[in-house]
Amino acid sequence: MLLIFYMIEIKPHLTLVGAGPGDPELFTLKGIKALKAADVVLYDALANDSLLEYCKEDVVKIFVGKRRGSCAFSQEEINHLIVENGLKYGHVVRLKGGDSFVFGRGYEEIEFVRKYNFGVSIVPGISSSIAVPEMQLIPLTARGLNESFWVTTGTTKSGELSKDIAIAAQSSATVVILMAMSKLEEITTIFSTFGKSTTPVAIIQHGTTPKENYLLGTVATIAPLARAKGIDNPAIIVVGDVVNLHPDFLSRNDSIHLFDIS
Amino acid sequence: MLLIFYMIEIKPHLTLVGAGPGDPELFTLKGIKALKAADVVLYDALANDSLLEYCKEDVVKIFVGKRRGSCAFSQEEINHLIVENGLKYGHVVRLKGGDSFVFGRGYEEIEFVRKYNFGVSIVPGISSSIAVPEMQLIPLTARGLNESFWVTTGTTKSGELSKDIAIAAQSSATVVILMAMSKLEEITTIFSTFGKSTTPVAIIQHGTTPKENYLLGTVATIAPLARAKGIDNPAIIVVGDVVNLHPDFLSRNDSIHLFDIS
Repeated sequence: MLLIFYMIEIKPHLTLVGAGPGDPELFTLKGIKALKAADVVLYDALANDSLLEYCKEDVVKIFVGKRRGSCAFSQEEINHLIVENGLKYGHVVRLKGGDSFVFGRGYEEIEFVRKYNFGVSIVPGISSSIAVPEMQLIPLTARGLNESFWVTTGTTKSGELSKDIAIAAQSSATVVILMAMSKLEEITTIFSTFGKSTTPVAIIQHGTTPKENYLLGTVATIAPLARAKGIDNPAIIVVGDVVNLHPDFLSRNDSIHLFDIS
Repeated sequence: MLLIFYMIEIKPHLTLVGAGPGDPELFTLKGIKALKAADVVLYDALANDSLLEYCKEDVVKIFVGKRRGSCAFSQEEINHLIVENGLKYGHVVRLKGGDSFVFGRGYEEIEFVRKYNFGVSIVPGISSSIAVPEMQLIPLTARGLNESFWVTTGTTKSGELSKDIAIAAQSSATVVILMAMSKLEEITTIFSTFGKSTTPVAIIQHGTTPKENYLLGTVATIAPLARAKGIDNPAIIVVGDVVNLHPDFLSRNDSIHLFDIS
């Protein structure tokens, strides 16, 4: 009698995958390849759930999103979930909204798993910081208007607004601030201090999704407008002269309407 | 006898498509959809040529890349090519390296074609400014190290380095400078002026392609190193403490090696 034993060796592996800004078509071929190869997927509130359809049927799906009010998992718990699941099942894909290395804490996850001899791969995603204004026809850079853009977040480690905002307010940079709706008044006060109260501002909520909503104003007017309309995170705040290029600011005859590709 | 005339009305349309940083798998599903729908493609030196395989067989392909030394087409000539081809054939896809709205002059092309009643669509691309450092395991943001990142270019309208670099050098931001190899000495001098001569710097050339090449150093050492090694554009310069997270700076036992997804 011949007995054949299959020893399947589990090789733990972590792939960070950027899910992009929300539209499931703004996802990469490499991201699909990673999801197809996944044994386990840990996914965020900001990643479009429909992307999970690329996974194998028996994939283990774990939702680790932090929704406001109910912080489902701490970063430390997520780190441990990755390790436990990787050691048990093999290939863990960590699917995050936007890009994992733009305020995504992706590096922390890599740093944690390498202590457990995980292999590591990265698939960049379309960052909301660029693509969400873009789909509102606001370019982060435009010749003659500005020469740089600067991206920060409302949710720093200390919980306070980054001191860099006051520095950026003194430059020609288009300033993009992610997840900062609770600090909108504080932000506009800083820009006003540097003589920018008439600089145009756009706020885009749920960008590139069917729930997309936007608001235009100036440094002086945007905060009361946003409160009146109840616009909240997930949202992107864009401050800078490039906001003047938004179609709503152009004359009606000149206006541009974006079409979907058909 | 029945005569049937087909009147095919040409509807001129421009779709800006970001080709991503170079790796053809870092391209989006929406980008593929646009290429499939294209009657004409105008493409850059920085867009991966293999993406053209998604086009219809009879697509009109026009190379408009500006290679150093032989500036094939001026922006004005490109604008006119888009209009002529759109009016003649219909759907023009403008395929650009990275993202069209990050120093890509995409907005200028939209502004030009709308005078000719073109429909307009946009497909964001993976920006090299984020993804190229990412694939070298350098996150543009890392908790505790920095709270923002700043992206600028060496090729401004005036030809001079942007004054924003001196402002950025005073912040905690990771500073990313695209296409600025000819101004490397000038850039490092500015950072040194603000007491940052020991800040780590990475230069990544041809990121995410088989020709990828990188160099690590500090503000004080990087310029002579880059000259000695002959590293030139297309390259991305990254200045900031996050560069210390690059695997070459970690101890050998701790090092991380990135795998491709298989």
